Amino acid sequence: MKEITSTANPQVKTWKKLADKKGRKKTQTYLLEGWHLVKEALLANEAIDNILIAPNFKYLEELTKLTDIELIKISPAIATQLSETKTPQGIFAEVKIPKLSLEPTTARGAWLFLDGVQDPGNIGTMVRTADAAGFSGVVFGDKTADMYHPKVVRSMQGSQFHLKLVSSDLLPWIQAFKAAKAPVFGSELNQDARSYDQVGQHENFALIMGNEGNGMSQELLAQTSLNLYIPIKGQAESLNVAVAAGILMFQLIK
Amino acid sequence: MKEITSTANPQVKTWKKLADKKGRKKTQTYLLEGWHLVKEALLANEAIDNILIAPNFKYLEELTKLTDIELIKISPAIATQLSETKTPQGIFAEVKIPKLSLEPTTARGAWLFLDGVQDPGNIGTMVRTADAAGFSGVVFGDKTADMYHPKVVRSMQGSQFHLKLVSSDLLPWIQAFKAAKAPVFGSELNQDARSYDQVGQHENFALIMGNEGNGMSQELLAQTSLNLYIPIKGQAESLNVAVAAGILMFQLIK
Repeated sequence: MKEITSTANPQVKTWKKLADKKGRKKTQTYLLEGWHLVKEALLANEAIDNILIAPNFKYLEELTKLTDIELIKISPAIATQLSETKTPQGIFAEVKIPKLSLEPTTARGAWLFLDGVQDPGNIGTMVRTADAAGFSGVVFGDKTADMYHPKVVRSMQGSQFHLKLVSSDLLPWIQAFKAAKAPVFGSELNQDARSYDQVGQHENFALIMGNEGNGMSQELLAQTSLNLYIPIKGQAESLNVAVAAGILMFQLIK
Repeated sequence: MKEITSTANPQVKTWKKLADKKGRKKTQTYLLEGWHLVKEALLANEAIDNILIAPNFKYLEELTKLTDIELIKISPAIATQLSETKTPQGIFAEVKIPKLSLEPTTARGAWLFLDGVQDPGNIGTMVRTADAAGFSGVVFGDKTADMYHPKVVRSMQGSQFHLKLVSSDLLPWIQAFKAAKAPVFGSELNQDARSYDQVGQHENFALIMGNEGNGMSQELLAQTSLNLYIPIKGQAESLNVAVAAGILMFQLIK
């Protein structure tokens, strides 16, 4: 087993840089942390470049049954530097970012479109919820945080292996869905908005969720088939975007 | 205007300790941060002990119209030490923790019961969602994180001024609701669980949400009227607890 003990090792520096979009762009990889997620990646036959193991990792026997990749032993200090958590489980995998080229005209099923959503935890939670609700994919619009941001990866909980994730300008996607007679639902309260429980259930459709503070862009809002709102019965001004997305997704999907 | 410039000032130390349960227990106060929340507290006539203003605070004129409390000027360094955010807005309020004694037998309406929920962000989001859905109150069960934890306060977004929040053993609450013929819904998947959209809408009821990893305690589960589950259509193993609570609350309330 190859072993790295110095935090100054150039490969450790490369892995640390995977926390930033620039670093991920260079290597076209991202870092997975924790046994649960690494196991999911192995079972999903993801392309894995490296698996790193710290001394405290507990499931070595199970791991070696699942993969032939040569493991790299790292020191606890390296694990601490790479980890996003306070108590690292001692396993990381460097995974290739999938090159998914998908034409919006070929997309079917229920899709979530993210328009300028900024908080990585909200984004990851929405991807996980879309997976649970039976959605086919998620399109990350131009001003949305990166899909392999470490906090997005952590809160997706492995759903990136179950759904199609696409980074794209949302406009051609909206146009393709409308051309295929699949409704595109906005989620910004305005005078024409319809209550979310009054539009039935659908097989092929898209739901757009907007920025936490500013909502959807006006340009895209003008292109939607219909805008939906969730009636607020109490005194809260709004819902958390991931909670709102969950309520809408489970209501709209057939 | 009173002015404090040293981070070593004993009052600053007391405010810093409000981030911990022990500090809040001693003073029976908690710290609110940001103009939006401080304004909400003023408008809700909450009992405010102190208002702290840093030089970068922008709404001094509006603030002085709303309150007669003598403001305390603090240095940017103190604001940074008290703040939970990267870019403090320069306003804090030390608010008295309300002494709410509420007998479970007198509770009416829809209530959320939290059984061992640990993540402060999830808890605050659930309180905010309960407010939006028109719930009457939230009971924080014994192993649930503290309701005035700074991250709970931040994610509640002021909903603590709109709902009744109670810290209590959940068992007498469950028994009181059942005695009043108000159903108590659990949310743990088991053989007898019913799909959440098959139980109708209710005026008086309670919904119990459990711990993120381990679910509800078996002791309380045995006391529920009925357990509900949200069918997972994709491959995700579960939903985030705050998302699940949102879907259930909006579905169940009349």
